[in-house]
Amino acid sequence: MRIVQKYGGSSMGSVERIGLVADRVARTHALGHAVVVVVSAMQGETDRLIKLAGRLSDRPRDREIDVLLATGEQVSIALLALALRERGVEARSFLGHQVRILTDSIHGSARIQTIDAAPVHDCLDKGEVVVVAGFQGVDQDGNITTLGRGGSDLSAVAMAAAIKADACEIYSDVDGIYTTDPNICAKARRIDRISCEEMLELASLGAKVLQARSVEFALKHKVAICCKSTFDESGGSWVLPDAGTLEGMDMAGLEGAVVTGVACDRNTARFSVSDIPNRPGAAAALFQPLADDAINVDVIIQTAPRDGRCELSFTVPKGSALRTRQLLDRLRPQMGFGAVTIDDNVAKVSIVGAGMRSQPGVALRAFQAMGQAGIDIQLISTSEIKISMVVDDRFTEAAVRVLHDAFALDRAGGGR
Amino acid sequence: MRIVQKYGGSSMGSVERIGLVADRVARTHALGHAVVVVVSAMQGETDRLIKLAGRLSDRPRDREIDVLLATGEQVSIALLALALRERGVEARSFLGHQVRILTDSIHGSARIQTIDAAPVHDCLDKGEVVVVAGFQGVDQDGNITTLGRGGSDLSAVAMAAAIKADACEIYSDVDGIYTTDPNICAKARRIDRISCEEMLELASLGAKVLQARSVEFALKHKVAICCKSTFDESGGSWVLPDAGTLEGMDMAGLEGAVVTGVACDRNTARFSVSDIPNRPGAAAALFQPLADDAINVDVIIQTAPRDGRCELSFTVPKGSALRTRQLLDRLRPQMGFGAVTIDDNVAKVSIVGAGMRSQPGVALRAFQAMGQAGIDIQLISTSEIKISMVVDDRFTEAAVRVLHDAFALDRAGGGR
Repeated sequence: MRIVQKYGGSSMGSVERIGLVADRVARTHALGHAVVVVVSAMQGETDRLIKLAGRLSDRPRDREIDVLLATGEQVSIALLALALRERGVEARSFLGHQVRILTDSIHGSARIQTIDAAPVHDCLDKGEVVVVAGFQGVDQDGNITTLGRGGSDLSAVAMAAAIKADACEIYSDVDGIYTTDPNICAKARRIDRISCEEMLELASLGAKVLQARSVEFALKHKVAICCKSTFDESGGSWVLPDAGTLEGMDMAGLEGAVVTGVACDRNTARFSVSDIPNRPGAAAALFQPLADDAINVDVIIQTAPRDGRCELSFTVPKGSALRTRQLLDRLRPQMGFGAVTIDDNVAKVSIVGAGMRSQPGVALRAFQAMGQAGIDIQLISTSEIKISMVVDDRFTEAAVRVLHDAFALDRAGGGR
Repeated sequence: MRIVQKYGGSSMGSVERIGLVADRVARTHALGHAVVVVVSAMQGETDRLIKLAGRLSDRPRDREIDVLLATGEQVSIALLALALRERGVEARSFLGHQVRILTDSIHGSARIQTIDAAPVHDCLDKGEVVVVAGFQGVDQDGNITTLGRGGSDLSAVAMAAAIKADACEIYSDVDGIYTTDPNICAKARRIDRISCEEMLELASLGAKVLQARSVEFALKHKVAICCKSTFDESGGSWVLPDAGTLEGMDMAGLEGAVVTGVACDRNTARFSVSDIPNRPGAAAALFQPLADDAINVDVIIQTAPRDGRCELSFTVPKGSALRTRQLLDRLRPQMGFGAVTIDDNVAKVSIVGAGMRSQPGVALRAFQAMGQAGIDIQLISTSEIKISMVVDDRFTEAAVRVLHDAFALDRAGGGR
């Protein structure tokens, strides 16, 4: 089999841990698999470098910040390759530009365009383990770029697609994807298999195991991901682009469930804009300056107009709240809307499940469960496979548990 | 003027110091000069990385060690470029492979072959400051290489040659080249001008201000070097490839002196091999295996043969003593020589001066001074412009002072 293994910062947290990673890679290699390893910077290293830069400059998306941050993964690949050779495994490290992980030129959040798999295949054919620096790429002019936080997941999935790997194993300190955050709900259960679409919703709704963009990439390029623990051989969760990706794998469990998981995102602020003159294009006029400023507007609710005026509510990440406020203040004179209220003590709780498509009544069950628990829902937004509810932050944990119970997610075969 | 400035690890020792370096570069740029800056890793960083690697592997010359160590300079160029931009100076960093500092493939001590100056000229033409990572290069296959300890000096001189710079300024925490180590001899005086040839002897004899290979390169490619202090605008010593390099500069002082400086090297072990059968090729047979092992054999003395046998003495760096011993032990049965004695409590003290060529009697004056001071000379070796004497290490400091006095090097116009 051809396998990509990705080890994150906590797996590479110390020289000792890098030794354990090398042991694990060596075992996989000894089984006769062709192995490409993608690694992150050692835990804490990226933050250390950002802090250094912050004392000299406050340009977070500068070309030079990428030059700086890329060193973190460079240290990791060199140390892991050395540790592998010390174990008698021929290994060779590659930087982003050496496997030509070509990206656009948006420093700090570059997007992968192509990968030159030829040098990787050359090494694999010789029986060598290939160790690739995650998180980094190179643009057309040879400048170093980085892919943004969690970008090593994306590097791994893109590498798996480029070499047509049989699986992309993402290692971290948790042993898979859970029905919800075990720190909030003790009954959370590990999911054996989840579709990319569901994972995508969970990831963008606050689940931190996998970076959302990497799941998107996996879906598009049909890469099967397995999330596993670095320090525990058992367990693991498969994230699959579609049913039947892995030959012989029973996808019934996946298809039978209506709800797969519960996510929550506390990094949310709610805005309400009242008395908006209800003319065509009003909503667009309101959101245009936010979009221009790359503010990620999420749940949007517009009330039915009354007396020619309506109210709009929406959420933004907490970090964008101040900027959003400024933009709205600037907009008010020309648009003539009323008061703007902000509440940043809110959270977004969501249920996700591909089965919702064919099962009506899921939303109703969720709202009933919340109502019975006395939890007031402020905003609701739905997609084909998810229902998000904005609630007061003091209800967040209760809401997660209530929804987890309502769909019996603690039981194998639950979620119906 | 087109100027290359090189800042070493101590100049880049902290964020604050990097700020001071940026101030200095910005001042030079503001004077209208085209500036290329070459930097080392932040002080202590290379050692930290070597220690990390040492806990996983003991291959000091591995390809991956170069990948690891190259990150040190990468951090430096990014931070300095950021600091310059913060000061309103457009700056752009370049890694070894981005200016294509092409080297051979000898990891850990690669030799520079060519540099592609085109991207540097592009930036300089736009008025940008160019910040280049010292110490690193790239081989023909795109692998990262490093130039060995002190390699950033070489990077700077090579860069100066490539862009035909008017001067290559090497900044450190000392304000120039001294007639001898001021820690040993309080009367040491800063030299205003010294020839590359003299500097080459001083550098290879233990003076640490400039890496010997960089001086060699400067001599060959006619680069004028100026050694200065990062934290002190005054002072500085010119190292010149030949008289008249700098227009209008008075070279008389340089030519008038017989002795320019006194160097000492305590990293020395002395070997004596007795009773060597004196047949043609005996010395070659003895030194061949040492050369094959890249052991740097220095002062070599052979006694006149007596009864068909002779004695050979030579010095090697202390770190090579054990290996030299092993190689000699292996050689003894086939060559049939006698006892091998080793003394690693020795030091090599040398006087250097281009004027020796035309001034006989310099050696005699040195030996007389040593004799009067009661210092026993164990081995002597001379070249056109230097005289080296191996002495017991307990006499090292006394020998340096005696020789410094004997040629009145503490006085301007001394050394005669």
